[in-house]
Amino acid sequence: MNTDRLWLSRFAPTLPDILKTPLEVAHAELAAFPELSVELCLQEDMHEQWAFEKNGNRELLRGGMQGLLYGAYTLIFSHLSHQTMPDGIQSPAYPLRMLNCWDNLSGRIERGYAGRSLFFEDGSVSYDPDRIRTLARLLASCGINTLCINNVNVVENAQRLMEDLLPDVASLAALFRPFGIRLMLSCDFALPLRHGLSTADPLDSQVQDFWRDRAALIWEAIPDLAGFVVKADSEHRPGPFTYGRTHADGANMLARAVKPFGGIIVWRAFVYNCQQDWRDTVTDRPKAAYETYMPLDGAFDDNVILQIKNGPYDFQVREPVSPALLGMHHTHLAMELQLTQEYTGQQIDLFSMPPMWEEIFCDLPPERIGSIAAVANFGRDRCIVGHPFAAVNLYGYGRIAWDPHARAEDIIRTWCTLTYPSFTLDACTKLTDLLLGSRRVYEKYTSPLALCWMVVPAIHYGPSPLGYEFTPWGTFNRADRDAVGIDRTSKGTGYVLQYPKALRELYEDPKTCPEYLLLFFHRVRYDAVMKDGRTLIQRIYDDHFEGYEEVEAMENVLQELYPLLPPEDRELVSARIALQKANAREWRDVVNTFFHRLSGMDDLKHRKIYD
Amino acid sequence: MNTDRLWLSRFAPTLPDILKTPLEVAHAELAAFPELSVELCLQEDMHEQWAFEKNGNRELLRGGMQGLLYGAYTLIFSHLSHQTMPDGIQSPAYPLRMLNCWDNLSGRIERGYAGRSLFFEDGSVSYDPDRIRTLARLLASCGINTLCINNVNVVENAQRLMEDLLPDVASLAALFRPFGIRLMLSCDFALPLRHGLSTADPLDSQVQDFWRDRAALIWEAIPDLAGFVVKADSEHRPGPFTYGRTHADGANMLARAVKPFGGIIVWRAFVYNCQQDWRDTVTDRPKAAYETYMPLDGAFDDNVILQIKNGPYDFQVREPVSPALLGMHHTHLAMELQLTQEYTGQQIDLFSMPPMWEEIFCDLPPERIGSIAAVANFGRDRCIVGHPFAAVNLYGYGRIAWDPHARAEDIIRTWCTLTYPSFTLDACTKLTDLLLGSRRVYEKYTSPLALCWMVVPAIHYGPSPLGYEFTPWGTFNRADRDAVGIDRTSKGTGYVLQYPKALRELYEDPKTCPEYLLLFFHRVRYDAVMKDGRTLIQRIYDDHFEGYEEVEAMENVLQELYPLLPPEDRELVSARIALQKANAREWRDVVNTFFHRLSGMDDLKHRKIYD
Repeated sequence: MNTDRLWLSRFAPTLPDILKTPLEVAHAELAAFPELSVELCLQEDMHEQWAFEKNGNRELLRGGMQGLLYGAYTLIFSHLSHQTMPDGIQSPAYPLRMLNCWDNLSGRIERGYAGRSLFFEDGSVSYDPDRIRTLARLLASCGINTLCINNVNVVENAQRLMEDLLPDVASLAALFRPFGIRLMLSCDFALPLRHGLSTADPLDSQVQDFWRDRAALIWEAIPDLAGFVVKADSEHRPGPFTYGRTHADGANMLARAVKPFGGIIVWRAFVYNCQQDWRDTVTDRPKAAYETYMPLDGAFDDNVILQIKNGPYDFQVREPVSPALLGMHHTHLAMELQLTQEYTGQQIDLFSMPPMWEEIFCDLPPERIGSIAAVANFGRDRCIVGHPFAAVNLYGYGRIAWDPHARAEDIIRTWCTLTYPSFTLDACTKLTDLLLGSRRVYEKYTSPLALCWMVVPAIHYGPSPLGYEFTPWGTFNRADRDAVGIDRTSKGTGYVLQYPKALRELYEDPKTCPEYLLLFFHRVRYDAVMKDGRTLIQRIYDDHFEGYEEVEAMENVLQELYPLLPPEDRELVSARIALQKANAREWRDVVNTFFHRLSGMDDLKHRKIYD
Repeated sequence: MNTDRLWLSRFAPTLPDILKTPLEVAHAELAAFPELSVELCLQEDMHEQWAFEKNGNRELLRGGMQGLLYGAYTLIFSHLSHQTMPDGIQSPAYPLRMLNCWDNLSGRIERGYAGRSLFFEDGSVSYDPDRIRTLARLLASCGINTLCINNVNVVENAQRLMEDLLPDVASLAALFRPFGIRLMLSCDFALPLRHGLSTADPLDSQVQDFWRDRAALIWEAIPDLAGFVVKADSEHRPGPFTYGRTHADGANMLARAVKPFGGIIVWRAFVYNCQQDWRDTVTDRPKAAYETYMPLDGAFDDNVILQIKNGPYDFQVREPVSPALLGMHHTHLAMELQLTQEYTGQQIDLFSMPPMWEEIFCDLPPERIGSIAAVANFGRDRCIVGHPFAAVNLYGYGRIAWDPHARAEDIIRTWCTLTYPSFTLDACTKLTDLLLGSRRVYEKYTSPLALCWMVVPAIHYGPSPLGYEFTPWGTFNRADRDAVGIDRTSKGTGYVLQYPKALRELYEDPKTCPEYLLLFFHRVRYDAVMKDGRTLIQRIYDDHFEGYEEVEAMENVLQELYPLLPPEDRELVSARIALQKANAREWRDVVNTFFHRLSGMDDLKHRKIYD
């Protein structure tokens, strides 16, 4: 039974809870594998780095305090998955490898699909220390080193985490510390107003004093706190705009308050007009981040990191890389991914993300960013991430955060080998192939060709072709009887102009635009002919029919694997694939019917489209 | 200031709280109008009846205990509105003139738009006795005599009203009693399961015993309780179907339990498949009530009343009369109306209902039903019904419950005269005309030609053309690029066959079908020509443009009236008409755009339709 241990299934069930440092954890982990007789050599200045060296029979792991822990995990994983250890000094690509937990103080996780919060309940900090240690171990084992524990929407009185609940946060931080994981806190930009100030204006000296004093209090309680995450002026959150200030003014003010303690400010760039009139065809939401932040490029302090979502919309199934990530050259940037499957199946439907990240890093040179973040997908469910296979996204995120060049197939295969030791090589290949293809399957039966937003509003699970069409969220498909999509070229909203030349030219022309992004950039007639000779409408129908059939095929593969799965995993997997199939059928029929009613064009293969 | 007194604005502000009987209330009310020197003559056997007699200078009101109260109110109202008293014995058309409050024990009112519950808060019976007396007086003044105080969905532990909270219900009943108002309780059909029984099967003798004992307990506490309201097997509520029994089995079992106490069972006929697959074009939700209950016609006990909504759907802006109301000849029937404006503007948009009821009673001979019920529209808001003008629906309902032949114009004008004594005749006419036309205006800018259900799901305010299209609720418009609507004729779903011959023939043929019901009964091409020569699509566009313009015109009329309104009414009315205008604009543009995108047909008058 490994349901609640995920890829650590063959590790010692628990670690002694007296361990104080990553080095002690490394020793304890290795002790469970006596066949590995490696010597650890601490070299403080190596920090997170490590190197594995073999000298005749003698095996040596050199590294910094955290480096040795990462090296130890890599050594054990390599051993368990029969891989060779890499040569030379190993360094993470990104020093800050964050997870953002959208956990509320009530215990409810915003967009959480794995149960309630592991950290909070009923307005208090509340946790099971054993589960926290299990989580910390999982995260450390794949190299994650920073955890923001509360929702970026600081609601339900979560300001208290920086006030009277600070000692509780400190106790929690102590549980993560031996695993080399530092905490962060999401902060309410309007916090000064809760403390008797009449303003939160970042240029007001009283506000600056407030934050300096508050930071001192906070770092006194948690000396290794990594910093604050801030969602400001976004979806009704308070921010500098209230006071006529820029986001650089706001971020820098906080940055100066936390700098004496080595803290950083992670400033989220998810700012757009969420009150857009659907009649307005000039405003184009994907343009928002670039328009807001490009003029500030270079204006942020050194300890500010601008955190930008991977795509310009909001974690849709398929989006181009955000042009803000490509365009800003004088700002520390973090890319934000989303592990919790808000728009991607909610841990019911299979959606394995490493292939998507591989695609992102094709367009985004990994060195363009200096940090990486992801919205966490775990909770109090027994299997921690809701669906046993959703663990590959957590594990995989850690892997690409350390090395963005890691290949999706390698990540998934290794995760599978570690998680299911009973698997044959053939079974492992089957599951790996299935997961590698799962995003494409999900994409096929949901929203075609990067059209986006055909989901049930608010819930974001299940089809609703016009669900977001007449809302204030800036999320339109403008489908009519002849065509669908928005022209975002230089002749349309001009979004494409935000890209560097090569991508701009690629996306500008429907002939060169990658087909999987076609409807993101172009308005296309249903009778337009695609590269392979099919019309757009036929492509939409084909994708949806195929997507459903491929879910059926996935279920067949899973059925072959059930005998090899632990019973609890089997139960979860089989129940959820049944739901996924029903979901895929619903998407297929609703989207096909929607376009059939609009276009009046029949499926050339005469499959059933409902009237 | 009459905001919280509504049409009793010229009555004595309060009544002494020592009054015990309707006769005492009648005397007290008349005492405030010394210019009315009428003698009251109690004739117990007249019950609710009354007669006004003039003998020279001597004026006499004869009547039963309640009759005298109704007569007194009528006399005062006639006096205040300068109308003559009717001749002869006055009897109510329906002995049971009910209101259903959808109040939950938490204090939240389901579909309530006038604040929280007047009866409950935070899991308890909780009220301000003065406000209860004000409410009772308002209801008695227009002839309402029965009040079901809790939601038909017995949730949030409301079963306790029949358990430990019974003494509190009894205290509340005592406040209503002097006004001739009896309470009812909504009951949970599965109540026996809360008391240790393993079944709620109506044919099980233990269940029958349970209910008999429970009824005895309840009537011991409240000897004049009118009975129970039951929503069974509807929208996930428990019911006889669970045990393979009919609704006659279920209703009769309860009826026999309450019969010894003179109690009645009001059984709601709102039963349909709320899990319908949208792909299923055979099942047709409007057919449900007739299909479920016609086979049971004659099978219900004498003290069972089948309560059927006025239309076959669910309180839409425009529906034909439910064929179940027309077809059942051997069952006691109540028609259920909805005062709370769930689909009709939520007490923001003006929607005065008496004209709608007048229309209903054109197709439904008043004597076809024996009772009448309405979902209440009041709550804890200062003005009780949310919008000062929504009071006309509460007052008007009482009037038609007493006399279904009452004319809408007379009702509205009288209400206006009573409510706003400062109004000139001209102002009164203006407001009367505005309210008389308000439903037609609302209909024009919302959903055309009885198409129904183009609302935002769950919330039911604001447009969403496909919001209910792919849901399990049986609520479809099946709009495609050529046509819209469902063929419910004999060649379609056959719904029309549920009607008596005359209506059946009328509705069967699109040429004779009233145009305002056209899309309820027929699937119609956008280019079909209507009676006045316009195409359907042009009619849709015209209605929506006109509807918005008519809201603007209403606002102009209201602005003329503002100086005559009490300041609090003025504030509410002016704020809400502004919201209504925004709502009308949104409906106009969303619906027009939706149909324009589908049909590709332009507005012949070249008004702006957004792409």
